[in-house]
Amino acid sequence: MDSDSATTPGAGASLPRSVEVSILKNGMTIVTDRMEHLESAALGVWVKAGSRDEHIQEHGIAHVLEHMAFKGTSNRTAQDIAVQIENVGGDVNASTSVETTSYYARILKNDVPLAIDILSDILNNSLFDQQELNREQHVILQEIGASKDSPEDVVFDNFQQSAFYQQALGRPIMGTPETVSSFSAQDIQKYLTDHYHGPNMVLSASGNVDHDAIVKLAENRFSDFGATPAREPDTCVYTGGEAIVSKELQEAQIILGFEGRAYHARDFYASQVLSMLLGGGMSSRLFQEVREKRGLCYSVYAFHQGFSDTGLFGVHAATEDADMPELVPVILEQLRQVGEEIGQDELDRARAQIRAGLMMSLESPASRAGQIARQILLFGRPVTNEELMERLQALTVERLSDLGARLFRENVPTIAAIGPVNHVPSQAEIADRLGMQMPVAAQ
Amino acid sequence: MDSDSATTPGAGASLPRSVEVSILKNGMTIVTDRMEHLESAALGVWVKAGSRDEHIQEHGIAHVLEHMAFKGTSNRTAQDIAVQIENVGGDVNASTSVETTSYYARILKNDVPLAIDILSDILNNSLFDQQELNREQHVILQEIGASKDSPEDVVFDNFQQSAFYQQALGRPIMGTPETVSSFSAQDIQKYLTDHYHGPNMVLSASGNVDHDAIVKLAENRFSDFGATPAREPDTCVYTGGEAIVSKELQEAQIILGFEGRAYHARDFYASQVLSMLLGGGMSSRLFQEVREKRGLCYSVYAFHQGFSDTGLFGVHAATEDADMPELVPVILEQLRQVGEEIGQDELDRARAQIRAGLMMSLESPASRAGQIARQILLFGRPVTNEELMERLQALTVERLSDLGARLFRENVPTIAAIGPVNHVPSQAEIADRLGMQMPVAAQ
Repeated sequence: MDSDSATTPGAGASLPRSVEVSILKNGMTIVTDRMEHLESAALGVWVKAGSRDEHIQEHGIAHVLEHMAFKGTSNRTAQDIAVQIENVGGDVNASTSVETTSYYARILKNDVPLAIDILSDILNNSLFDQQELNREQHVILQEIGASKDSPEDVVFDNFQQSAFYQQALGRPIMGTPETVSSFSAQDIQKYLTDHYHGPNMVLSASGNVDHDAIVKLAENRFSDFGATPAREPDTCVYTGGEAIVSKELQEAQIILGFEGRAYHARDFYASQVLSMLLGGGMSSRLFQEVREKRGLCYSVYAFHQGFSDTGLFGVHAATEDADMPELVPVILEQLRQVGEEIGQDELDRARAQIRAGLMMSLESPASRAGQIARQILLFGRPVTNEELMERLQALTVERLSDLGARLFRENVPTIAAIGPVNHVPSQAEIADRLGMQMPVAAQ
Repeated sequence: MDSDSATTPGAGASLPRSVEVSILKNGMTIVTDRMEHLESAALGVWVKAGSRDEHIQEHGIAHVLEHMAFKGTSNRTAQDIAVQIENVGGDVNASTSVETTSYYARILKNDVPLAIDILSDILNNSLFDQQELNREQHVILQEIGASKDSPEDVVFDNFQQSAFYQQALGRPIMGTPETVSSFSAQDIQKYLTDHYHGPNMVLSASGNVDHDAIVKLAENRFSDFGATPAREPDTCVYTGGEAIVSKELQEAQIILGFEGRAYHARDFYASQVLSMLLGGGMSSRLFQEVREKRGLCYSVYAFHQGFSDTGLFGVHAATEDADMPELVPVILEQLRQVGEEIGQDELDRARAQIRAGLMMSLESPASRAGQIARQILLFGRPVTNEELMERLQALTVERLSDLGARLFRENVPTIAAIGPVNHVPSQAEIADRLGMQMPVAAQ
């Protein structure tokens, strides 16, 4: 992984005019991004802790905690939480990802204090009552069951597991029926106490909000979280792998993947641009070649996801059995070609797409609040769109094609598939087609 | 169906200040809703034509047309369309529903003329080239295949088919592999010519847009569409029905349904409120009873959908085989109870949720453009949030419980299920539990 701290936004850069940042005594960040023409606000607490922070015997506990946070506190029953926020037409929800857990609310502007009170209550004072836990474990088993019935969920879970074999970053976020059923209230409280520390937490609000008022509301309510940074998760190493599952389906879903770039890596933004011009829109190479010229798929796209110490680059496609022999070689040929030459028009278009996407996301308070929270967790401060665009402006077609020539050959590939998989090539066959040798075969 | 034209917004009511409406000579409406603080715009063409306007031998053609509109015109290749809009960071997309087809773009403010030019070009000048059609038919077959692999898609398709048995409103929007493969370029052009008429079309734009400039751009570009109203689709009658499909899945998905209310019906808004307090949020009766008190499901919710001459009220839930014997009676008991008494707090909360939802949707140009376009197609003019809230304000708990007492007993139920369905009750058993007799059993 080629890291380069110079590409991490520097602490001295200027903030967008509408953004204000305060730090509580325990290190928790309060950030607001005011949009005074709105009647509403979006706010939430983002915690730098997710499934990859779990020990093996804790598999799934970050997500169980996220559910149990809504099951009653010393001040409110589960029903009180739902009724109080919906009485004012708001809603609260939460989500757990690999490196982050977030709890957020959408409310009208006058209900910001209520939303902050509820979010702080569920994070500070949850009871984790045993009877509620039993019921919620059963609810989560059903959530896992529904996910197993979705071929897309299954192929993405298997993909991540194969890419980061036997590591926390690869394990499915929801855990297994066995692990989820095994947790006690004490286990959940311990995970919270271990990972929900001030320096790992951001309260982010956007919309019609007042920074000073929010800081005042937050000061007392979030002061009990630990002031030391929480333990960092173990470093994760991309392994690559293969998970080809035969199942009676109309379409085979495949994900072809490679090691991507960490957030702080020199080539993080180049990898984002590469995934966009390969498979980010209707004009992208994969969409044009696979769907428009050949009619092989309804859905084909590329993605790049950064983590703190690694990344994943992938191509997802779904097709019927008869088209698979043509599909994979066509995708691999597109991956090969971006290593040869990239047009200035393609780079310009990818930049325009990212720029417009950033500008449009500024128009939504929920997008703003989430974006700034993640920036603070990753980079330690908000990053302006101008800074991001400067980074993109510095990219050249040569650097992109150079990255394209390396990215798909520097490490073994990952292949995950589900459905009619007779014609899905093995990991070794894919490596061979990309002109690289599998380490095992080389020994 | 109890219709009452007095609940249809009157033509004399005032417009929101930011909204301007013009009508072209051929009857097409141009509506804009300016949000001058934005840097972007959302706009699109909404056509009052969808799958229910298809003759039986045209099943799926509305959706094929929507795809083929992006496959090349006399001015632009398919690739030109994609490249031109993405060069400026915009995107175009389209969707087909039962009664409406829409083509829309998200762009930065200076690119409004380009977006209008592209949308008018694809609707006026599409070539429906035979080779492109062959390829796109294959793409749509794969879209249908992927949908068949999604238990949720299948259960909703089966539900609609059973509720409106052997009628266009019940048929799956995407058609069947056989019908989709059968269409010629002439068939597609004929469906367009038959249904895309000025009086059935709205160009709606919101965001940083200028009404007069848009009208000027639209005038020449949309003047070739017919000036007579298109043929109205056949009246549809709710039949109710049963579609219980055994499949090896972790969870059984069920939809329990009833005849709902048409847009113009007296009880349309009451039905919307009833579905919200029954299963619209975390505080709703179904969520509280089914998930929070009993842990029977991860997902359970109610919905109400209006059409021009009928409606559908449904409850969707997913659960494992072992929980099904408890689940259905619990849902039916909740349906029975809303016919007895509804609390003022529940009505107030549902109103607050709808009001906040409306206010927040005003903050998104894409929501605004779509909402106003649909209002014009349904009611002939834009409807302000104040008017909508007045309608909700007029509702009483008595009227709602009275509706609740009728809605689930006035006609035979519909039941659709997929998965492990051993314990899913039949349509007759559900009718029996609701205290009504099936017409057939009564003979």
